[in-house]
Amino acid sequence: MTNNSKKSYLELTKKWHRFAVLSDAIAMLSWDRQAIMPSGSGAARAEQIAILSVLKHEELTDPLTLELVDKADTAELGDIEKKNLFEIRRIYRHAAALSPKLVEEHSRACATCEGQWQLARKENNFQVVAGSLGEVVKLTRQIAAIKAETFKSNSYDSLLDEYEPGGASAQIDAIFALLEPALQKLLPEVIEYQADIDFPTYPTPVPIQNQKSLGQIIMKALGFDFLKGRLDTSVHPFSGGTPDDVRITTRYNENDWTSSLMGVIHETGHALYEQGLPSRWRGQPVGSARGMVVHESQSLLMEMQVCRSPEFFKFLAPIIEKEFMVQGDQWKAEELSNNSRRVTPNFIRVDADEITYPLHIILRYKLEKALVCGDLSVADLPDAWNEAFESSFGTRPPDDLQGCLQDIHWYDGAFGYFPTYTLGALAAAQLFSAARKDHPDILAQISKGHFSTLLNWLRKNVHSIGSALSTKEILIKATGSPLSITAFLEHLNSRYLGKASKNY
Amino acid sequence: MTNNSKKSYLELTKKWHRFAVLSDAIAMLSWDRQAIMPSGSGAARAEQIAILSVLKHEELTDPLTLELVDKADTAELGDIEKKNLFEIRRIYRHAAALSPKLVEEHSRACATCEGQWQLARKENNFQVVAGSLGEVVKLTRQIAAIKAETFKSNSYDSLLDEYEPGGASAQIDAIFALLEPALQKLLPEVIEYQADIDFPTYPTPVPIQNQKSLGQIIMKALGFDFLKGRLDTSVHPFSGGTPDDVRITTRYNENDWTSSLMGVIHETGHALYEQGLPSRWRGQPVGSARGMVVHESQSLLMEMQVCRSPEFFKFLAPIIEKEFMVQGDQWKAEELSNNSRRVTPNFIRVDADEITYPLHIILRYKLEKALVCGDLSVADLPDAWNEAFESSFGTRPPDDLQGCLQDIHWYDGAFGYFPTYTLGALAAAQLFSAARKDHPDILAQISKGHFSTLLNWLRKNVHSIGSALSTKEILIKATGSPLSITAFLEHLNSRYLGKASKNY
Repeated sequence: MTNNSKKSYLELTKKWHRFAVLSDAIAMLSWDRQAIMPSGSGAARAEQIAILSVLKHEELTDPLTLELVDKADTAELGDIEKKNLFEIRRIYRHAAALSPKLVEEHSRACATCEGQWQLARKENNFQVVAGSLGEVVKLTRQIAAIKAETFKSNSYDSLLDEYEPGGASAQIDAIFALLEPALQKLLPEVIEYQADIDFPTYPTPVPIQNQKSLGQIIMKALGFDFLKGRLDTSVHPFSGGTPDDVRITTRYNENDWTSSLMGVIHETGHALYEQGLPSRWRGQPVGSARGMVVHESQSLLMEMQVCRSPEFFKFLAPIIEKEFMVQGDQWKAEELSNNSRRVTPNFIRVDADEITYPLHIILRYKLEKALVCGDLSVADLPDAWNEAFESSFGTRPPDDLQGCLQDIHWYDGAFGYFPTYTLGALAAAQLFSAARKDHPDILAQISKGHFSTLLNWLRKNVHSIGSALSTKEILIKATGSPLSITAFLEHLNSRYLGKASKNY
Repeated sequence: MTNNSKKSYLELTKKWHRFAVLSDAIAMLSWDRQAIMPSGSGAARAEQIAILSVLKHEELTDPLTLELVDKADTAELGDIEKKNLFEIRRIYRHAAALSPKLVEEHSRACATCEGQWQLARKENNFQVVAGSLGEVVKLTRQIAAIKAETFKSNSYDSLLDEYEPGGASAQIDAIFALLEPALQKLLPEVIEYQADIDFPTYPTPVPIQNQKSLGQIIMKALGFDFLKGRLDTSVHPFSGGTPDDVRITTRYNENDWTSSLMGVIHETGHALYEQGLPSRWRGQPVGSARGMVVHESQSLLMEMQVCRSPEFFKFLAPIIEKEFMVQGDQWKAEELSNNSRRVTPNFIRVDADEITYPLHIILRYKLEKALVCGDLSVADLPDAWNEAFESSFGTRPPDDLQGCLQDIHWYDGAFGYFPTYTLGALAAAQLFSAARKDHPDILAQISKGHFSTLLNWLRKNVHSIGSALSTKEILIKATGSPLSITAFLEHLNSRYLGKASKNY
């Protein structure tokens, strides 16, 4: 590294530090807005976030940034420095590709559309939001086209890249082409298999205070560091904050204690990833989470792989007895475990079980690809949705509220995000399978409430890598293979049809 | 206003808007740090606040700011525009007077000193912090000298100006020279007068939940807008946030319900001022609170003038009976009111009653003036404190923990802040007296729980003025006179010696 390139690299690091810290500040203010902000201060908060975003954008798209990247980029660079430059260049190009005018138009169109979507839901009438969504889709197509040109990729991939850097629809197409028929074959088998199972019911309401206390106990057991994070309440559960201050939320329903607990566990998975990111690279691109596929793999590994296992319920049952002050057969480990495996196809994605969830995602992925590349018009969306749903699930949504109006994502402008849910579920199965191969006693340990072997494995193989490897590289290094549906299908067969899984 | 000066003014407004919004973002992040942040994320949060402060400082001290002020400053300016320019120039000069190096040294010295102060308190040993405080005082003297040169004022006034714009030690000297002997005459009279009073005791512990609920009821009654603010818990009660999102905190003690309630009422007074600031000038200097004297006048007006009046306790007693589920003589209005008037001299300022509180402040004011102008050395501070205390209260603190180590202010670098507490108490008495002159039935209304006449009077005469008038102008316009001790002494005589107050 020449003196000049070293100097440029250091200057770039300083610039990026400001950019990263501004992002952190925005993250904290956004958490506050969603979790505890009084409703009347929305406009003032929006202004704060907008001004910080402008400053962040100015910091990033300053032409000096690219100049410094170019000057710093010499052959003698170390590996980490190379990764940092690669990521800075990628993020710079996302930001600089679009004119400020287009960014502003798109941002305004999304805000309008989200408002109209709320209205459309209230009136159960897609027409209310059709015009606004049309505008969002029009601008999204423009953005996708410009970015495709910049990144020499196709439109959809250029959007996907913001959520899953390096993600490719060709790969997703190939995976989903195997997954969809496999699930459609599995689903009726599971429904038939479960027909004889007598699922337990939990009529006793559980006070919120006890649910909260249980959630905190499980968070601690899983390894959440409360010195660097919080648990709060919000309408929609989410993870927010920064790696040094991870804030997760859940919602409580006295008549459904499983929902708040599984929400807490899911968000704890996300939080453990953030808390395990390499602190020595904090504020550098390589120190950040890799992308939404790895992120979702961490939440789903905890929620689906670990905490719906019979072994987890062995650990959980006596704690529940004590914390909820309950007794009876339905609170025994086996019944709790049974209950967590119930498969019931449903029109609504967020209520879906582990088997049907990916079918919901595949449907949305196909439709959003068609919307972005212009094969589907907004006017035709409701019918296209209902037909796709019928062909996948065999029933037709009775209205758009249970159809194409159910999710916020497209209406607030997030195209290219949906597939990461299911890719994350596949990755979770693959990673957990690999962890058990490395440590065959992980599930036995979990039944005793010991999660450290698992957490250490995740810390080493996923969390501590940050963005120093790509999603694909992380998976290959940790599991020996690129992403595939094998581990996920084995897992579903084992959990839902009692078919013996591979011996480890 | 010429076209050029109009253009400059508009550009300046835009610059200032960014500055103001950055200040708001910092305020929210600081509230979070003090109220709910997990302890392990302090370093990351400090970095966020530091970077935003640097950006804010860059925005302000950009030489273009002063250039734009000069270009905009023409004779044809409207009144509000003139006030805005005046304030921008004042704040610019405070910021630009000091070299970044001096600011950084001072900021580091204060942080170190605050840490040493914690240690010194733990060990009850002033020597532990003497060196650090010496460094803070040395840098404070440098800063004061530079600013005195910039503002053509004396050292102390140049520091005072940051907390109380336009404040002058000559005026404070004159006021305190009258107030101190008056209080020293009053204090023994009150103690003798109260010797026969049988003060009630409240041995029943009151659960925190009930105290919180009472606090919220009283906040609402006083006029606090929960759509634009919150009540939370913290170790040290404070007001934070922004005018559109005012956040107050209190602390709860099951065995002392009066402390949390009076804390809530005090902070509500601050909050009502913030919530009443003119929204049409939001983000402009004239739209901000005038300074600490007016701010403290608003909290003390609510806490001391209004909510320790016999009429307030008439309103409060039945609510307490219901919320605390208590009964008995000590919970009747008269006894509650009696209890709130108890005068007991004490070494500790924050535990002081309404009469001795100003004596604590006068002591600190004299000492900090001497420290700033070089008449008192840090080494001599403990003795100087103890002598001043003895001459004022007749007893000598047994140690420095109950003497010069008790307050954080000097140790974190706040010189010139203390007198605003007592000036605020005087202003509170004067304003409340004027409000009752304008509306003789205010206290009768309060006994029925109606606070709107009072609040509307404050909105009109104080809150809605923002910084468009000086503290002096606000007082003269609202009460007919500049700040004096008359109303305060009348109030103390009436409340604590039962001497008839003026007829209104």
